Amino acid sequence: MSEHLDAVLDRIDADLDAAIARLQALLAIPSISTDPAHTEDVARCAEHLAEDLQSMGMEAAAHQTQGHPMVLAHDDSAGPDAAHVLYYGHYDVQPIEPLDEWTVEPFAGTIVEGPAGPRIVARGAADDKGQLMTFVEAMRAWRSVHGSLPVRVTILCEGEEESGSLSLDPFLKEHRSALSADTCIICDCGMWDADTPAITSSLRGLVYLEATLHGPLHDLHSGMYGGAVVNPANALTEILGQLHDDQGRVQIEGFYDDVRVVDEAQVSQWNALGDADEMILRSSGSGATFGEAGYSTLERTWARPTCDINGLLAGYIGAGAKTVIGATASVKLSCRLVADQDPAAIETALVAFLETRTPPACRWEIIRHGASPAIAVPTDSPWLAAAADGLTAAFGTKAVCIGSGGSIPVAGSFAEILGIDAILLGFSLEDDLIHAPNEKYEVRSFRDGTRAQAAIMEALSGVEVPA
Amino acid sequence: MSEHLDAVLDRIDADLDAAIARLQALLAIPSISTDPAHTEDVARCAEHLAEDLQSMGMEAAAHQTQGHPMVLAHDDSAGPDAAHVLYYGHYDVQPIEPLDEWTVEPFAGTIVEGPAGPRIVARGAADDKGQLMTFVEAMRAWRSVHGSLPVRVTILCEGEEESGSLSLDPFLKEHRSALSADTCIICDCGMWDADTPAITSSLRGLVYLEATLHGPLHDLHSGMYGGAVVNPANALTEILGQLHDDQGRVQIEGFYDDVRVVDEAQVSQWNALGDADEMILRSSGSGATFGEAGYSTLERTWARPTCDINGLLAGYIGAGAKTVIGATASVKLSCRLVADQDPAAIETALVAFLETRTPPACRWEIIRHGASPAIAVPTDSPWLAAAADGLTAAFGTKAVCIGSGGSIPVAGSFAEILGIDAILLGFSLEDDLIHAPNEKYEVRSFRDGTRAQAAIMEALSGVEVPA
Repeated sequence: MSEHLDAVLDRIDADLDAAIARLQALLAIPSISTDPAHTEDVARCAEHLAEDLQSMGMEAAAHQTQGHPMVLAHDDSAGPDAAHVLYYGHYDVQPIEPLDEWTVEPFAGTIVEGPAGPRIVARGAADDKGQLMTFVEAMRAWRSVHGSLPVRVTILCEGEEESGSLSLDPFLKEHRSALSADTCIICDCGMWDADTPAITSSLRGLVYLEATLHGPLHDLHSGMYGGAVVNPANALTEILGQLHDDQGRVQIEGFYDDVRVVDEAQVSQWNALGDADEMILRSSGSGATFGEAGYSTLERTWARPTCDINGLLAGYIGAGAKTVIGATASVKLSCRLVADQDPAAIETALVAFLETRTPPACRWEIIRHGASPAIAVPTDSPWLAAAADGLTAAFGTKAVCIGSGGSIPVAGSFAEILGIDAILLGFSLEDDLIHAPNEKYEVRSFRDGTRAQAAIMEALSGVEVPA
Repeated sequence: MSEHLDAVLDRIDADLDAAIARLQALLAIPSISTDPAHTEDVARCAEHLAEDLQSMGMEAAAHQTQGHPMVLAHDDSAGPDAAHVLYYGHYDVQPIEPLDEWTVEPFAGTIVEGPAGPRIVARGAADDKGQLMTFVEAMRAWRSVHGSLPVRVTILCEGEEESGSLSLDPFLKEHRSALSADTCIICDCGMWDADTPAITSSLRGLVYLEATLHGPLHDLHSGMYGGAVVNPANALTEILGQLHDDQGRVQIEGFYDDVRVVDEAQVSQWNALGDADEMILRSSGSGATFGEAGYSTLERTWARPTCDINGLLAGYIGAGAKTVIGATASVKLSCRLVADQDPAAIETALVAFLETRTPPACRWEIIRHGASPAIAVPTDSPWLAAAADGLTAAFGTKAVCIGSGGSIPVAGSFAEILGIDAILLGFSLEDDLIHAPNEKYEVRSFRDGTRAQAAIMEALSGVEVPA
């Protein structure tokens, strides 16, 4: 590493407490994008972030969309000939239910001592506020030490990542020129393990819908009507119970038709990374792995499509017993997709799976919550190599290429609309409880991540920009 | 009818507005027995009822139990040689969810003009406060006109009918002598139709349990873990989806082994009562009847056992999408039983149905909410004949014998502990929305029911009491 970079890394370390305080201020805003009750909080969070970027000397603003605002910022202090990097993060967060399982207030950014040192426990700590603040803090340190950044920077922070990204594509199209760049860092991914940094080169896609089965016009007494008419809750479980066969294969028609088969070499490389099952059991708190027969756990989560029930609601769910047949029964249902599956076709097939099983005199009400394809990023670009070098330098452990079971639709949009292949990385760990109660981000992840972002910037500044 | 009775009926009519106001006062107390938050309301409701009975000159009190209070009252004004009748009703009510479907405040006792005249819309209007007030108001009128009742009366009003009646059997055993009587009227049933009074001679039993399937220790991100470990919501629907075969037959082991087959004559009599399907479709707001193949709708609801999901809860149920695998998935599940099925055996078999399907590294948490057998009341007693005469006289239409799909466990307890075969009757109608939003009781049901109770008392007073 250069002396130039060393000074930045020293500044990052010296400024850590203040950086944590800034992250806590961001975490304090409950920017739950999926819940209309929090619309103003989401807007406030965008303003807060834009003001922070402005305070660093960047040109930054929160732009209105049809949904939640986009924060867009530019920094050309590196000069017109420098490499131009687009940074992406999202400032919105998941809902916090079930509330009673949190051991701290979800929006207080509480520091808790953990087995690996202090951690920040809060909704959004790891997904994605803590992660986006790694590049923001790295830039702050660069500017503070050297008065400028080593690369030209555009920052795009989204407020709808957790709610379907409906405004993203229109925004990218409208601001195509303002978002043009040589490469892009999407900071919403994880490490392989606490010591091994990683670049994520494949991500699953997602189809998510909500289906409500309507039966009788109103709730019924289960004694008077049990056996007389359709019970939507009985019918819903009968239908959903057919989603998988006894080998764990999804039974939606045509579901596997377009699935790209991952080659043996790739599978071998993944399986050589370490004991993934042990890691997954520990972080999930499960006693056994489970899924489609014939594939390792890493293959199943990185390279096989799935169908999962994300929510179920029918009848009476309060304390005690109520002898009721509910008028409706609802499911939130999503499929994770892999390369070459067409989200629209899977969505159609999923709806058809339900519709062809509609019980007598019932009807479905279906809400579509988004559909996005899987992403497979080319791993042979000089930008990706430079980012890997930066990660390796910062952590002292060689960065590896991994897959992810999650979905980051923005990577597909960047490729399609902006023509940029994204570099997907981040510093979250398997046990960060993303989307769950007590989500956390290790202070070490935050510090090392910020240092890695500074190193990556320097590495990217050395890549020869094509004419 | 006698002049003696005519005077009572006139008084009932003249006093109707005041009787409605008294019913409204009872309905105003939200005595939801299944919800611990309403424990004090249930106690207040018992006191209110006891005070009302005292105000009529009865010896009445609310007795503490391990659960909610029992209201017990006596009236010996008929003299020591008169027939002794035990009256039963329950003053507790079902929960009111889903709240947003109520068109009036659930505990205001609002009078709404309906197609058949005014109706009282409130939780408990028909089940069972409006019904128990028919015998209370009939007694009030008898005492007011004649200074005494034609029969000796004991009243028992329960506060746990909607929550499993856990205190009932211990109370009956402890107060066996105070509850001894020649016959018993349980007023918690319905008419055949708006013109035809009925005595219910068969009732289904009930087994109700709540089962929560525990998988991972905490909620998981459905991308990171989808396909890696068991999703309890997927597993629960797969298990519940096996409860019925494609003929609608319940697949719990041994479920039908002890079912008493109803004879052809009985079935023919039921099927001759009228167009039950049309009535059920209208009152349920369903577009089709549905259930076990090979049986008429009346047979299915009166003489065949069923298994129904009464509640489902898993994952995220708020607005929008959340890509979560919930740590648990829960079901409230009940079976309606028919004559000769053993509730304990069915409960055991239902638990075994779940346990034998437990997914890898998961566990069940099971809460038992009660188990009671079906009831088949002998139809050849002079008391039942007298009650039928009273109903026929009051309505001018011959009373019929019907079954019910619902469960009234107290009838079994009275037979077993007190040695009394109950006469089950009442004045609620198929469309009273019992257990559902906008439950109602026609003012006509209340008036005619009160008049019928007065007539039944006189008819019962003529039955020769065995020495």
